[in-house]
Amino acid sequence: MGKKIGVGLLGLGTVGAGVANIIQSPEGRHPLVAGIELVRVAVRDLNRPRNTSVPSNLLTQNPQEVVDDPSVEIVVEVMGGIEPARELILRAIASGKSVVTANKAVIARHGKEIALAANASDVYVLIEAAVGGGIPIIEPLKQSLGGNRIQKVSGIINGTTNYILSRIAKEGVTYQEVLKDAQKLGYAESDPAADVEGFDAADKIAILSGLAFGGAIKREKIPTQGITKLNNLDIDYANKLGYRIKLLAVAERLNQGTESISSLPLAVWVQPTLIPEAHPLAEVNGVNNAILVEGDPIGEVMFYGPGAGAGPTASAVVADILNIAGVRVIKDQSNCLDPLLAANSWRSCHLVENSKMIQKHYLRLRTKNSPGVIGQIGKVFGDHNVSIQSIIQFDASEAGAEIVVITHEVEKGQITSSLNKINALEEVNGLLAQMVCL
Amino acid sequence: MGKKIGVGLLGLGTVGAGVANIIQSPEGRHPLVAGIELVRVAVRDLNRPRNTSVPSNLLTQNPQEVVDDPSVEIVVEVMGGIEPARELILRAIASGKSVVTANKAVIARHGKEIALAANASDVYVLIEAAVGGGIPIIEPLKQSLGGNRIQKVSGIINGTTNYILSRIAKEGVTYQEVLKDAQKLGYAESDPAADVEGFDAADKIAILSGLAFGGAIKREKIPTQGITKLNNLDIDYANKLGYRIKLLAVAERLNQGTESISSLPLAVWVQPTLIPEAHPLAEVNGVNNAILVEGDPIGEVMFYGPGAGAGPTASAVVADILNIAGVRVIKDQSNCLDPLLAANSWRSCHLVENSKMIQKHYLRLRTKNSPGVIGQIGKVFGDHNVSIQSIIQFDASEAGAEIVVITHEVEKGQITSSLNKINALEEVNGLLAQMVCL
Repeated sequence: MGKKIGVGLLGLGTVGAGVANIIQSPEGRHPLVAGIELVRVAVRDLNRPRNTSVPSNLLTQNPQEVVDDPSVEIVVEVMGGIEPARELILRAIASGKSVVTANKAVIARHGKEIALAANASDVYVLIEAAVGGGIPIIEPLKQSLGGNRIQKVSGIINGTTNYILSRIAKEGVTYQEVLKDAQKLGYAESDPAADVEGFDAADKIAILSGLAFGGAIKREKIPTQGITKLNNLDIDYANKLGYRIKLLAVAERLNQGTESISSLPLAVWVQPTLIPEAHPLAEVNGVNNAILVEGDPIGEVMFYGPGAGAGPTASAVVADILNIAGVRVIKDQSNCLDPLLAANSWRSCHLVENSKMIQKHYLRLRTKNSPGVIGQIGKVFGDHNVSIQSIIQFDASEAGAEIVVITHEVEKGQITSSLNKINALEEVNGLLAQMVCL
Repeated sequence: MGKKIGVGLLGLGTVGAGVANIIQSPEGRHPLVAGIELVRVAVRDLNRPRNTSVPSNLLTQNPQEVVDDPSVEIVVEVMGGIEPARELILRAIASGKSVVTANKAVIARHGKEIALAANASDVYVLIEAAVGGGIPIIEPLKQSLGGNRIQKVSGIINGTTNYILSRIAKEGVTYQEVLKDAQKLGYAESDPAADVEGFDAADKIAILSGLAFGGAIKREKIPTQGITKLNNLDIDYANKLGYRIKLLAVAERLNQGTESISSLPLAVWVQPTLIPEAHPLAEVNGVNNAILVEGDPIGEVMFYGPGAGAGPTASAVVADILNIAGVRVIKDQSNCLDPLLAANSWRSCHLVENSKMIQKHYLRLRTKNSPGVIGQIGKVFGDHNVSIQSIIQFDASEAGAEIVVITHEVEKGQITSSLNKINALEEVNGLLAQMVCL
């Protein structure tokens, strides 16, 4: 693979530490991870104790040192905030370095300036982590859906508000109560405005809109309404009518016709929205995010997962690093495939014996309708160390009964040997069905 | 962009025609689509009338002509079946051409042979369309999740069986009845074995397992159980216990520990599975597919969408063509970015006026409890061409009533002018809430 690709990290908070951890423990990940090296890390305070394995000689309090270090090929900005993040990103670009950033605020506000600079310098600025946390959405929009005419992108893209709305809908608690809990759990900032007023979601839909429709729109003109004025009564009425209320962000093209117009008209908005129960976005709860993309000819696809958090965000940052590293391998070496696209196996795998599979099991037994039968069956499972989630009797009559057993996770071999004993019980007439459970 | 990239198509059935249609109408898609040209197409019968815009001079009945044509850089195999598909793929690879295929049966059985040949010839074989129809899952696994240690991939990856199980669960009809319907609708083949016995799902999980865990396993050893022996009684009991039954395909690594083992032990299986109602896979119904990926540090992400069909499958095929084209652009031109990764805008977009946004609206009004009030409100909406989905009265008492209106899709301007009139009605005391609906 040649020389390792040097990565410089701006910021060593939870996301930065997550990225460092992935790069420093490449075993079991894509082999290209082993071709990446962390060479310089900017932190705010050198003396703060921190829980990472980053050698202290890599650390500096001067972020410009990271950007300017000649061994840094890719600058990873995970410090957040507008400045000096914007300035450092532009400085990296100007010196011919590609940038990976999780900073949605900078990209939503200064994306155009940054993209122009990146193209002028022939470098990449990748932003998978800026929207949807760990969910791959930016790369699929750019790389997998390019054959489509995108009609609409809609999503639950703010985890804080979705956590709050999910708990209100489920428990009927007040907004103020849940907000306090969310702050305690670290899901909401002490000043929650960016989340609860919808500004964070507006940043993200501005970014998604630019990718889906191929042109930037004015972030500050997006009509944005948060959840602070939402009335519990409407959540209740909505439930009764078969809807869930979510803070939805939408970007949609309005003309269906020809492309012979000078500018594409888009409706882009962020506001609390009633979503029918059967809609794929209706059951996205808690801090999860989901993004639905509608296009021609694909129809509808949805991307769902953790919308925030150090691990998922670090996963997205590393995805971008790998994409840049993959392209760099092609540029450097003629006759070489992009290692991310190539079809290489990189380790040996084998199937385990069926009896070693670990699963929950659903078993339906026909038994005599005798009072002791559930106890006898339970004892056999206990003897085989099979832990039971539930045993329920259906359809008891003089003709007999049906007993449904759902186990906890056990090796299939334990189930097989238990069933051998159970089938031999005088009270049991047979096993009628056996399936696995999630 | 230089010379166009020549694509040769093996097969012009529904998927092939969908691919041709995308390539031949690039407007409104990613600009790289315009850099691709359809140069040769193999069909079974030249004289069959067909509903495509492919010029007849591109057609040939000899697929080797397509593979051997020097202007074909990328061979797209959408003819299906094992032979001659396998042979033609290997012939294309041997002559240094990259291949895109939707053929899961060939890849699941001969993937190793094909991958070895591709790497020896320094060409790509991309297979996004082989699993999950239009859902981007192969590329995200390769390109976006490479930083993770994947723990488990589980999915509903056969649309036919999911359609059958969804209808049994909802309507209580028999397997035989639904199978007949599925055959009439084109969701099931006249010989449905590949789908209903789980073989198709086993092909697909073999492919996903190889990508997720980095090494091939033996396709023929995957324990596979279809839905033909499923008893409606168990579907009923499962529902009562809070589960849905789906044909699930799972690939999971069994060791959690170090990587210092010579071969990774995997549990891979296909079988009917009970899924708790609240699980993200539980509400995947009809011919839709969904794939859940669990890894460290990402947690869980899910990809959901149409698992089959000409349009979605063609979208996935074109995604692969674009990925190869993007890499080719870098190789050809020094100082050039991969156009799929670069941050280019490629058209002008603008936001429309708020009043022009088209949405369904939820309105909650406080009114006097008078018998004519719903009629009066309905009349105002009618006068403004606002079509109503429902008007419902809540909490009627002497103090007044609350009326909830849900409209069909209308321009926001129509809602605003209707509400101006409604607020002026003597019977209406005020608008208490206004939201949009999906």
